[in-house]
Formats: sequence, structure tokens, C-alpha cells
Amino acid sequence: MFTGRIVGEIWATKKVPSLQGLRLLLVEPEVYHPPHLRPHSTKDLVVAADVIGAGVGERVIVAYGHGARNALGRGENVAVEAAVVGIVDDVELTGGGV
Amino acid sequence: MFTGRIVGEIWATKKVPSLQGLRLLLVEPEVYHPPHLRPHSTKDLVVAADVIGAGVGERVIVAYGHGARNALGRGENVAVEAAVVGIVDDVELTGGGV
Amino acid sequence: MFTGRIVGEIWATKKVPSLQGLRLLLVEPEVYHPPHLRPHSTKDLVVAADVIGAGVGERVIVAYGHGARNALGRGENVAVEAAVVGIVDDVELTGGGV
Amino acid sequence: MFTGRIVGEIWATKKVPSLQGLRLLLVEPEVYHPPHLRPHSTKDLVVAADVIGAGVGERVIVAYGHGARNALGRGENVAVEAAVVGIVDDVELTGGGV
Amino acid sequence: MFTGRIVGEIWATKKVPSLQGLRLLLVEPEVYHPPHLRPHSTKDLVVAADVIGAGVGERVIVAYGHGARNALGRGENVAVEAAVVGIVDDVELTGGGV
Repeated sequence: MFTGRIVGEIWATKKVPSLQGLRLLLVEPEVYHPPHLRPHSTKDLVVAADVIGAGVGERVIVAYGHGARNALGRGENVAVEAAVVGIVDDVELTGGGV
Repeated sequence: MFTGRIVGEIWATKKVPSLQGLRLLLVEPEVYHPPHLRPHSTKDLVVAADVIGAGVGERVIVAYGHGARNALGRGENVAVEAAVVGIVDDVELTGGGV
Repeated sequence: MFTGRIVGEIWATKKVPSLQGLRLLLVEPEVYHPPHLRPHSTKDLVVAADVIGAGVGERVIVAYGHGARNALGRGENVAVEAAVVGIVDDVELTGGGV
Repeated sequence: MFTGRIVGEIWATKKVPSLQGLRLLLVEPEVYHPPHLRPHSTKDLVVAADVIGAGVGERVIVAYGHGARNALGRGENVAVEAAVVGIVDDVELTGGGV
Repeated sequence: MFTGRIVGEIWATKKVPSLQGLRLLLVEPEVYHPPHLRPHSTKDLVVAADVIGAGVGERVIVAYGHGARNALGRGENVAVEAAVVGIVDDVELTGGGV
């Protein structure tokens, strides 16, 4: 799992049936510049499905694979391998910062 | 999952039986140069199976693993771990752009 | 699996139900500078669930996927794909070091 | 999945039982330098099992995980997570090239 | 799967129950500098479980995920996703070398 910030959303009309009704968000992973976590804009964005209502600009936790599909509550028959599993309230880093 | 652009197609006569009749596309991942997503030509291409009829030049969403096999609708007995799951209509990024 | 040091903790009130009551730690992977293992602060942190009581500053072993969910003892229905599986007592490297 | 070229073969007498009789090939991934795919010699080689008779120097498609084990036709009880799934006849890239 | 050299071993008293009695080795991946494979000391080490008795300094093949757990012969209920599956006797590379 990793933390990141939601920077956008994707619309796709033509898609496999199991994606119907799923929001697909673009998540920018954070990188650790001690003692802070910063957005990592040189890295590929991750497309993550969301069912907990995360909004653009929010920091989230993203899980992969079976863990991601579990978060969606639709069983294993869904064409997804990354999903938002939580919205970050606070991060406490050793160096104190955020 | 990630977004990318289809840049080519692969032909393979000699292959495992479960790949018969599956189109294999070459997808170039996009990278985030705020506020835009750009093709990432220094990155390895991903070979993804396709059953939704994506064409060369189109932007697509690619999923991995079980999620990819689900998209193909052939059950788990297929020698694939990446597949096109949707064709991108529109991407709305925080900074406005595309 | 990899070794790393716990550098922080994440709080998330809004999350998928299967994460309730799970500690989510931020782990900084180590890199090998022979004959030592050093923190790797330019790398993305990994968010790992923990049920063995690892504390900030401790060196841990992190596993992924099914292996991670097994460590949590909650079955497969948990939205997690990385977990702490052990606390490092000692690392013996060929060159002698730590 | 990715495309690559077979650059070698590995022999291992002492191995887990499920690897008996499986050829293990070293595959060098290709990278995209538009409009061509080139060998990527600065990248780690991938060790892939092969049951379709790919030879050194041939271009192949390699799949991972469950998809790889499916290609081997030995069920899930095999200690492998990468396998050759096809031999490339031709690659058609947008820019025309190979 | 990849090839690497065992450079160390990890001791962990506090760990999840399914790791009891499993050796945990540190493996340094090799990289391809044609026509040779060389240790890749700037890369993260991989922690791999071992049940075939590989020793420090030996070259091994490491598998991931389900393939790794299969190598351990303890079923799927083990908190591991990387394992030694073979000890390398010989590597034959196209360019002739080792």
C-alpha cells in the first residue's frame, strides 16, 4: 500500500462490464523527503477504483490486488487491481513533520 | 491500473493454447507532467490482452493480475496478467488540463 | 519481502470496514551499501499493516500479497497487501557488517 | 506481460521438486525507443520457465503470476511466477518500425 | 524470477507464527552487463525464505508470490512472498560468458 493525493478522475464509456458504476481516480504517489512526505510528480500516476467517496485533492491510502478488490465489496469478479482503502486524517512521521 | 496509449500490436503463431484468439497490444504508459499526462517513451512497453476492441492510438486503462483476467471473460485459465479494461473518454486533472 | 525501518504511522477515520482496528505503519526500505544496509530515503515509503506490535524506529521485515494477509490472521477478506511479518533482531551480512 | 529476447539458460541441479524438467531461460526485456523496440541491457534479466520450446536469440512474450503458471500446464503447484507464453512473429508499431 | 547471490541472513525472534523455523536470506539481485551477470549492489536486497539449504555466497534463483510459497511445501498459509527455488549450477549466456 502507499499514500498519495488524488489529482484527477477518468471517464470511460467503453469498458468491461465489471467496471460499470465504479469511479476511477488518478492518484499521485507521495515520496519521503525526511521529515516530510511530498507529492512525487515525476512518477507514474496510479489509477485506483474508489467506493468510499474520496475527492480530488484528498490524501488517500491505496491497496493492490486482492486487497484492493476486497475494498470494493463486489467480490473477486471485478477487473480492478488498485483501490482507495482509506482517506488519510493524519500522518505522524518520526522527524515530527507531516 | 494505469493509463497509456496503444502504440502497436504483436503477432505470435507459436503460443500457449489459452492465448488463441486474443489480441495482444503494446501499451505505452503515460506519466504525469502537471497539469498534463504525457506518453512515457523511455519506459518499457506493457503487453496487454484486449477484448473490447481498442485500436492503435487510443488511450486505454490497463489492469493487472486477476483483475486483468476478469476483463477477458475466459475465467482464470488464461496465460495473461495484463489487459485493457477501458477506453479513456476523458481525464480531468486538478490543474485543469488533459 | 524486504527489510526497512518504521518511520511513522497513519490515521484514517474514513476507511473500508476490513481495516478497522489495524495499525498502518510507514516503512522506509533499506538499501545495500556493502557491507551495510542503510535507510533508503529517496524511495517511496510502503504502508504496511501490523499486528505484532512493531514500534516506530524498529527494523522490520515486510511481506506482500497473500503472504501479508496471512500475517494478519484475519483471512483473505482484508483490504491489505503489505504487512509486517517480523521484527529484525540481527542481520548478518557477508562483509561482516550490519 | 512484456516482450524480450532470450539471452541464456540456467542450470540448477538442486532445486524444489516442482521445477524438475522445466527449462529456465534468461530473458532481456526490450524498451521502446520510438519507432523501435530495443534490447534493454541495463535492466535486470528475468528468469522465465518455458514449455513451448523457445530458443536462445528468439523474441518472446513473458507473462507473470497465475498467468505464467497457466502457460506451463502443470496446475498451480509449481514454484514459478514468470513463463514464456509466446514467440513473437512480428511487432507492428505505430511509427511503422519493428 | 531472478538470479542473485546470497549475501546474508536475518534473525527475528518476534515474528508471525507461520515464519517459525524458516530461514530468511538476503539476496542481492544480479544485473546483466553483456556478456556477464554481475551483482547489483545499488539495488534493494530481497528477503527470501529458504528450505533447500542455500548458503551465503551461493547463486540462487528466487521466485515470488504463490510460486514462492509452493517452494516451501507448507501450503498457502505462510506469510512469505519470496523464496529460493534453486541453486544455480551454471548460466549459459549468448555472449558466451557467465
